[in-house]
Amino acid sequence: MSNGNLGGANSITVRLEYKNKKGMLAEILKVVSEVGGDMAGIDVISIKGETIVRDLTINASDSEHEEKIVSAIRGYKDIRVVNVSDQTFLLHLGGKIELRSKEKIQNRDQMSRAYTPGVGKVSQRIFEDKSSVWTLTGKAHTIAIVTDGSAVLGLGDIGPEAVLPVMEGKAVILKEFGGVDSWPICLDTQDVGEIVKIVKSISPGFGGIHLEDISAPRCFEIERILQKELDIPVFHDDQHGTAIVVLAALINSLKVLNKKKEDLKVVILGLGAAGAACAKILKDFGIKNIIGFNSKGLYKRVDEYNHSYWLEENLNPYNEQGDLTDCLKGADFFLGLAGPDLVTGDQLKNMNDESIVFALSNPNPEIMPNDVPSNVSIIATGRSDFPNQVNNSLAYPGFFRGLVDSKAEKITNEMKVAAAKAISSVINENNLSEDFIMPSMFDRNVVKNVSEAVIGVASEQGLSRRKNTLKSGYISFKRFH
Amino acid sequence: MSNGNLGGANSITVRLEYKNKKGMLAEILKVVSEVGGDMAGIDVISIKGETIVRDLTINASDSEHEEKIVSAIRGYKDIRVVNVSDQTFLLHLGGKIELRSKEKIQNRDQMSRAYTPGVGKVSQRIFEDKSSVWTLTGKAHTIAIVTDGSAVLGLGDIGPEAVLPVMEGKAVILKEFGGVDSWPICLDTQDVGEIVKIVKSISPGFGGIHLEDISAPRCFEIERILQKELDIPVFHDDQHGTAIVVLAALINSLKVLNKKKEDLKVVILGLGAAGAACAKILKDFGIKNIIGFNSKGLYKRVDEYNHSYWLEENLNPYNEQGDLTDCLKGADFFLGLAGPDLVTGDQLKNMNDESIVFALSNPNPEIMPNDVPSNVSIIATGRSDFPNQVNNSLAYPGFFRGLVDSKAEKITNEMKVAAAKAISSVINENNLSEDFIMPSMFDRNVVKNVSEAVIGVASEQGLSRRKNTLKSGYISFKRFH
Repeated sequence: MSNGNLGGANSITVRLEYKNKKGMLAEILKVVSEVGGDMAGIDVISIKGETIVRDLTINASDSEHEEKIVSAIRGYKDIRVVNVSDQTFLLHLGGKIELRSKEKIQNRDQMSRAYTPGVGKVSQRIFEDKSSVWTLTGKAHTIAIVTDGSAVLGLGDIGPEAVLPVMEGKAVILKEFGGVDSWPICLDTQDVGEIVKIVKSISPGFGGIHLEDISAPRCFEIERILQKELDIPVFHDDQHGTAIVVLAALINSLKVLNKKKEDLKVVILGLGAAGAACAKILKDFGIKNIIGFNSKGLYKRVDEYNHSYWLEENLNPYNEQGDLTDCLKGADFFLGLAGPDLVTGDQLKNMNDESIVFALSNPNPEIMPNDVPSNVSIIATGRSDFPNQVNNSLAYPGFFRGLVDSKAEKITNEMKVAAAKAISSVINENNLSEDFIMPSMFDRNVVKNVSEAVIGVASEQGLSRRKNTLKSGYISFKRFH
Repeated sequence: MSNGNLGGANSITVRLEYKNKKGMLAEILKVVSEVGGDMAGIDVISIKGETIVRDLTINASDSEHEEKIVSAIRGYKDIRVVNVSDQTFLLHLGGKIELRSKEKIQNRDQMSRAYTPGVGKVSQRIFEDKSSVWTLTGKAHTIAIVTDGSAVLGLGDIGPEAVLPVMEGKAVILKEFGGVDSWPICLDTQDVGEIVKIVKSISPGFGGIHLEDISAPRCFEIERILQKELDIPVFHDDQHGTAIVVLAALINSLKVLNKKKEDLKVVILGLGAAGAACAKILKDFGIKNIIGFNSKGLYKRVDEYNHSYWLEENLNPYNEQGDLTDCLKGADFFLGLAGPDLVTGDQLKNMNDESIVFALSNPNPEIMPNDVPSNVSIIATGRSDFPNQVNNSLAYPGFFRGLVDSKAEKITNEMKVAAAKAISSVINENNLSEDFIMPSMFDRNVVKNVSEAVIGVASEQGLSRRKNTLKSGYISFKRFH
């Protein structure tokens, strides 16, 4: 990419057919350039007589830009656009994940060990000692990524088929960043009781459950019951992934601005899955004054779910009244998890000097970074094209790596706070600045630090199943001992 | 392996510690040899002063033999057995399968295509056109291997944890032989209604369902409902895998013995999942006279399940009476799918000359090959250590390869018969003999022929979703057309 923001998800390949003559290609490239297209590749596909077929791969800034580029090419005389392919779609053809067998089976001997008759004695062993399923199968390192497709990115309730590419993406990230195996389970039901029953039923083969893109408030209830009734960790990324990265970013913001957590006044806009979880982790971290707003204004209990009581008991300890503008007066930290353009620069002017704003609605934040007033010292978003990206991908690969390595029984608040501190610790304090509070997700120290933090807490809290390390892949053969 | 049947699933590594002196190793190897152990490897692990630690890898004939070998070594003076490892267990450490990401994510550009923001437009496309889930995700080539662990190998009802190594083995075979992706789903429920509901709920992410090791008669009902209510193929291996390989072996037996299917009298012992499915495929193939026995004797309807009516209407058309001995009189083909040692040579003497016996109970057949009388010309078992092994592994990898390539909507009887003929066709007719009626599962033509047969029938019957082949990985970009 030669051109700033162009490319990435918006790269197209346009197949053209035209009568070849001198200067023709230069003309076409000029057309592309005039509408701001960024040429990434030119390939000749075939030449028959005077007719030439070429592929032009062009980076665009967004879908609309792609269409504009194609229209411009179509408008050029004597050119036929054979088809237009999109690099993102091409990458998704056939999906992004597959099974890999660790064993080759090329002869009878290999077959007899990996399958019958050898596998019989392995099954027999697990039948006699159920805990050996953690060593003799892939359970320990395999996570079920469970969704009902009801709250997907900015798309909403798109269902279990349409959510599958997102879940495959999660699986790819878990593997590529954390080395953790997983498989997407996309459910064709949105019933809380049914989802709970299904996840419990499929749990024997998995070492953990990653709940994803399930809408609030159902997600709270599903997670609560599963955490209570399963002996493997259950992690709802929209809640805890977000909470961990928000706390990580806040910790470093406080360091940069030399502020103390005890003194902070925090205003959260949006109390869905992410907002409620952030409120909890900030409280666990030691912040006292947290005020919450949802679409109806200052927080009032909305339902009978567990987290509603928690919010009612813990938010707004000084019983402030009024609207968002009123409550932003004297606030130090505004956390937006609600939707695009929901707060104005004028409102933020009410905040204290050197205040912190995380506007995390994605892709369009509660306020664009350029629009924050000068009393805001640190502005973070969920976007990769501004500094200070706060993104869940910094949390869950390392978090699951740690859970898997510990064969942990469950997830605790202490693990989440430790994970947040681990992320923030990746940046050396000397390098921290208003524009650099979060490490890149491509910094391998992120997964390393987070997983070590989780392993440490799991061990301290007696939640690790890995009591001693197996040496050199040997397992002792019980009946001989 | 230097020694016939030794090795395979029964190979152990014994770690020894002893004071090293001249001739000591030779003495130890003599001890191993005296009890029939077959040395496969000798490794020095460490030497400290006079003390040496060695690993001896030894092939044995079975678990008992393994214990005998270890006892003999323990009995030898001045040797300490540090531990004993079993190659089969070693292979199972950490399980046999993992996820492989088809995409590397090493930079922001790759991330933006495989995950956010790019993945959003792929999800949007599937939301608008649900059928595109077959091309833009891994659904088309991914099978759910579903079990409740209630009828596993010779082990019975061992539950969802203990069955996992077997399911991982299935997944390995599907991938290694058929190139088909799958993931094990081991269910912690044996309720028919719940299993049906769970499989239906998880089906959006899968292109087919492989039911496995679910006990009869529940398996019939589960399969019947799922076949009716899902738009993806549902294959119960214990039924249809067995039926396909039995028919394949019979087709070649008839060729060898120059017999006609119309004239055959068939006696089936065992009318569980496999027996009932075999009766059906034999009837579909064109055999008229089929008599069935179960543990209560000559078949009488046992329950209200669908297949009971089928058996009642189709078995024993000439209304023969009596016990197994009586009904074997004049029979041409005995098919045992019931349990070890359930038929005697004397009983089989009542069969016609040049008759056929498949004794498929595994690992111990209804009658051992050496015990069949001389009027039996062809004897087949499920074992790999006798000629004519009849094993499901010949059927399901190619069958699923064909289903996946067709993106088939369902499985039909015609596909199963075609698959059986495809397996039998792998052996050139000139090479067929009483001792060679079935190809090896390591013959790559098996998967090739079976998958082509399934693809052909799916296309003929209008059950293929693959209407035209995508060329060179391109997908046209709908909104531009």
